Amino acid sequence: MGKIILTGDRPTGRLHVGHYVGSLRRRVELQNSGEYSDIYIMIADSQALTDNADNPEKVRQNILEVALDYLSAGLDPEKSTIFIQSMVPELYEMTAYFMDIVTVSRLQRNPTVKSEIQMRNFEASIPVGFFTYPISQAADITAFKANVVPAGEDQMPMVEQTREIVHKFNTVYNTDTLVMPDILLPSNDACRRLPGTDGKAKMSKSLGNCIYLSDTEEDVKKKVMSMYTDPNHLKVSDPGQVEGNTVFTYLDAFCKDEYFAEFWPDYKNLDEVKEHYKRGGLGDVKVKKFLNRVLEEELRPIRERRKRWEQDIPAVYEILKSGSEKAERVAAQTLKEMRAAMKINYFDDAALIAEQSEKYNGQ
Amino acid sequence: MGKIILTGDRPTGRLHVGHYVGSLRRRVELQNSGEYSDIYIMIADSQALTDNADNPEKVRQNILEVALDYLSAGLDPEKSTIFIQSMVPELYEMTAYFMDIVTVSRLQRNPTVKSEIQMRNFEASIPVGFFTYPISQAADITAFKANVVPAGEDQMPMVEQTREIVHKFNTVYNTDTLVMPDILLPSNDACRRLPGTDGKAKMSKSLGNCIYLSDTEEDVKKKVMSMYTDPNHLKVSDPGQVEGNTVFTYLDAFCKDEYFAEFWPDYKNLDEVKEHYKRGGLGDVKVKKFLNRVLEEELRPIRERRKRWEQDIPAVYEILKSGSEKAERVAAQTLKEMRAAMKINYFDDAALIAEQSEKYNGQ
Repeated sequence: MGKIILTGDRPTGRLHVGHYVGSLRRRVELQNSGEYSDIYIMIADSQALTDNADNPEKVRQNILEVALDYLSAGLDPEKSTIFIQSMVPELYEMTAYFMDIVTVSRLQRNPTVKSEIQMRNFEASIPVGFFTYPISQAADITAFKANVVPAGEDQMPMVEQTREIVHKFNTVYNTDTLVMPDILLPSNDACRRLPGTDGKAKMSKSLGNCIYLSDTEEDVKKKVMSMYTDPNHLKVSDPGQVEGNTVFTYLDAFCKDEYFAEFWPDYKNLDEVKEHYKRGGLGDVKVKKFLNRVLEEELRPIRERRKRWEQDIPAVYEILKSGSEKAERVAAQTLKEMRAAMKINYFDDAALIAEQSEKYNGQ
Repeated sequence: MGKIILTGDRPTGRLHVGHYVGSLRRRVELQNSGEYSDIYIMIADSQALTDNADNPEKVRQNILEVALDYLSAGLDPEKSTIFIQSMVPELYEMTAYFMDIVTVSRLQRNPTVKSEIQMRNFEASIPVGFFTYPISQAADITAFKANVVPAGEDQMPMVEQTREIVHKFNTVYNTDTLVMPDILLPSNDACRRLPGTDGKAKMSKSLGNCIYLSDTEEDVKKKVMSMYTDPNHLKVSDPGQVEGNTVFTYLDAFCKDEYFAEFWPDYKNLDEVKEHYKRGGLGDVKVKKFLNRVLEEELRPIRERRKRWEQDIPAVYEILKSGSEKAERVAAQTLKEMRAAMKINYFDDAALIAEQSEKYNGQ
């Protein structure tokens, strides 16, 4: 059996450079590596609704934004199946069966759920759907028999929960229907958690500290030039710090050596820049201008592809529709196997009817 | 709009006389009253799996038993839609959306869930599916736009939970898609909670204290003759107590005045028998023999119908299959309306695509 990927995003906003270096860029590489027999990219609207039930409009609008970001970043519907979670209703049924083999106390121990509940200030008023979403994620992964889940470190407890469910289901129902998944972590440290432009760990729309993939050239420049650096690096001649300096974190995530020849021939690579910055004599503005050139080089093709897709929104919906249809076919097959393993496929079960007829009529 | 009923049973065992007087007999009356435009009777296999996930075979076998009991008791597939819960997957999707508008703490406060958890000794290891089943019940009821739910007093908090969900969904999504249900309680006190033949409040297979609808004439007689009565009524001449006396509780539930002329002309009605028993001089055996005649009169036609249906098990499955197909059509329509109200029916939503095309292209 080939290697199969399942990954995705909640459609609660446009995607930003944090998503790009944290997952999106990698997905495109994996897609183009030829190593995977199937790649499923899910726009997780149902999951987004678990804590946005009173604002489905936000989810509804952002499905298109996320789809545009995907296509612009280089995901290719010929190679990757992009689909909308709620258009695969089999996932709800699978979730229900998994809910019967997971205990409430096990869910309560899930550290990701714990910290997300804290982050959202839910405390006593957690929606049940939000509390149980690790189980729904297990359905997302197993429906496609995915064995590779590219995700950040914060998702490790979620994949662990899925592994437990796979083990339990296969054991209880004496089957090998479900496939054990492994997490595929980002390889580059800077990519694991890119900070906001203000240096804060969390990028969020409300903080206004995100560079979006759909930002214009001017927007990006403005955000880069006002980025958080080293607050003690007051004069150019002062020694500067690169750790915790957002401009350098972004360069760690985006810069390639070849950019120096083209944009900043004074240096051969990022290490030389860092050395100069640390000993003093290199101003923030110069580094920011370079970062802006680098980001432009990375974001321009994305922006151009986005412009083209924006001209044909119905085509984007067609991609989502045919992706969702394919995803549903695959999930329906897995669900059929699950029901057979559980022996709750009564109407397809000729043996059941024969056995029960015999019981009553001794035939 | 007409009156619509939804009710049902968990297929975890054959139905007994407690089910019969508590709900089944009433359902047949309601069915034949002509007052209801639709009657849905659900065999709740998914709900049974929430605390029998490791034993789907029990559920699988008992679907037929419950269906046979239904048909034998007089439910008529021409008038009532008998269906299997898991064959209507729309219920899982509806449950998922309802889970987003109910909080964990609200579920924890549900007294029925509290006492059932205690009864099953679950404590820390409650399956998530069991914990959340009041939400799945709300889907069962609302999928069919049922406004009448015949059920016991113990189910009042469940119907109340459904009413809250209906109110919340219709308010949040500004719709009148979901219909507010009312519970219809049993009218006769003795019928609300028929005790076991040993006088214990709970009838259960493991206690061996149930008279099943499928029991033979001999079985019934044996169980009646060994019934719990008044432990202080030692000699015939002793005064006896009728309260808490199982034989009299069963007579309260089953006896009709017309049975006296036929089986026990010494008395005109049950009150006269009770008076004689209380003042002394009436032995248990006589009362038990009368109860046995009464039960036979009630159970014989059920037993005879069962014998006929047992000859044709495939026909019973056909009834379940066509009932499930009809139930699914109705639930699918309700779900479609729900998705439209939530505006998550993206592919059917021409306005969404037009609006987003315009946003990007100003057309």
